[in-house]
Amino acid sequence: MTPERNQRIRAALAHRQVDLAVCLDRVHKTHNLSAIIRTAEAVGVHHVHAVWMDQQSGLRKGTSMGTHNWMQIHDHPHIEDAIDTLRAEGKQVLISHMSDKAVDFREVDYTRPTAIIMSQERLGACEEAIAAADQQIVVPMAGMVESLNVSVATAIVLYEAQRQRQLAGMYQQDNFPEQEKQRLLFLGGYP
Amino acid sequence: MTPERNQRIRAALAHRQVDLAVCLDRVHKTHNLSAIIRTAEAVGVHHVHAVWMDQQSGLRKGTSMGTHNWMQIHDHPHIEDAIDTLRAEGKQVLISHMSDKAVDFREVDYTRPTAIIMSQERLGACEEAIAAADQQIVVPMAGMVESLNVSVATAIVLYEAQRQRQLAGMYQQDNFPEQEKQRLLFLGGYP
Ligand SMILES: C[S@@+](CC[C@H](N)C(=O)[O-])C[C@H]1O[C@@H](n2cnc3c(N)ncnc32)[C@H](O)[C@@H]1O
Ligand SMILES: C[S@@+](CC[C@H](N)C(=O)[O-])C[C@H]1O[C@@H](n2cnc3c(N)ncnc32)[C@H](O)[C@@H]1O
Repeated sequence: MTPERNQRIRAALAHRQVDLAVCLDRVHKTHNLSAIIRTAEAVGVHHVHAVWMDQQSGLRKGTSMGTHNWMQIHDHPHIEDAIDTLRAEGKQVLISHMSDKAVDFREVDYTRPTAIIMSQERLGACEEAIAAADQQIVVPMAGMVESLNVSVATAIVLYEAQRQRQLAGMYQQDNFPEQEKQRLLFLGGYP
Repeated sequence: MTPERNQRIRAALAHRQVDLAVCLDRVHKTHNLSAIIRTAEAVGVHHVHAVWMDQQSGLRKGTSMGTHNWMQIHDHPHIEDAIDTLRAEGKQVLISHMSDKAVDFREVDYTRPTAIIMSQERLGACEEAIAAADQQIVVPMAGMVESLNVSVATAIVLYEAQRQRQLAGMYQQDNFPEQEKQRLLFLGGYP
């Protein structure tokens, strides 16, 4: 591995937000999965949780341009399992969903350990997930369209988290586990 | 038209940000065009300018789920023509481009009349557009990925504009031309 590449990987991992997770509930279009993974990695998300549609596993099919090598993807059979796991890790569980009970996404404190659930393109969030989550969040819309594309909604919420965490100095704290860093540096040398 | 639908259209048009434009330079993937148009409409953009790739005209092909009926799409042969038009309208012309000369997208004042140029998926911004624009803007990234999806980058910038314009009370001012309102209300009654 060149010193430049080693340096680049180290810098990326040093900025990782290990306590900020994305959880995908049956999101299944390849271009959406790819865009979500790219955005998540760009804001330093390291853990992506996913419940797949029909045994499909888009991320495993290499939709995300290799970026998943730099992140951990955790599969769950049902959304309740994912939520249990995330809550056991001490995270607040937010669900992105357009409803009267949802608060504006900018009102949430994303400097806390946080997981954000995004749901299927057509079906949206399921009742179980809405019931199990701590809080519903919504991205305000002022036009005629009924919803945003799911990768767009994910990006808007994640960049609000990025804004808050940057202000709080959280990109200056290297919380990335040393052992995982060594493993990724090793893998990064042999692409 | 039902009173509810009439009311819904009126409310959407009353929130229109007629001096906030998006300009697409050869963006050509259908799912990206569709996601960009949805997002733009949701933040109240009414004018979308576009230079097409290879005579293709994705928006004309109805990729955007009818939302373009609620917006105006302006075609241009070359990006310089688009920029000339936007500048003649008194807009600052921003170009979204990852370069050393770009400022963080959050440092810009989007309450000014503004056009935001977004460029082709693979090729990115062209030299002519970079030279002709007033300012390059970048969405910061902290990982290994080299760029964001174009619809994602558009959404992140547009929702920063939405945030600033909401704070400035600009969604409370109805600047939408009465004649165009009547035309759209008429069309909206006969979908
Ligand atoms: C296309 S939407 C699903 C639309 C579905 N018909 C519904 O009513 O929920 C797909 C996902 O994107 C996210 N999403 C889209 N627009 C959103 C918004 N304005 N606020 C919050 N989440 C949104 C949600 O996670 C949603 O489940
Ligand atoms: C996938 S990118 C193009 C990548 C191209 N290889 C390049 O180097 O420009 C497509 C468009 O999305 C926008 N974009 C993507 N990521 C961005 C970022 N981090 N900041 C600003 N614009 C971005 C720009 O308009 C860019 O031209």
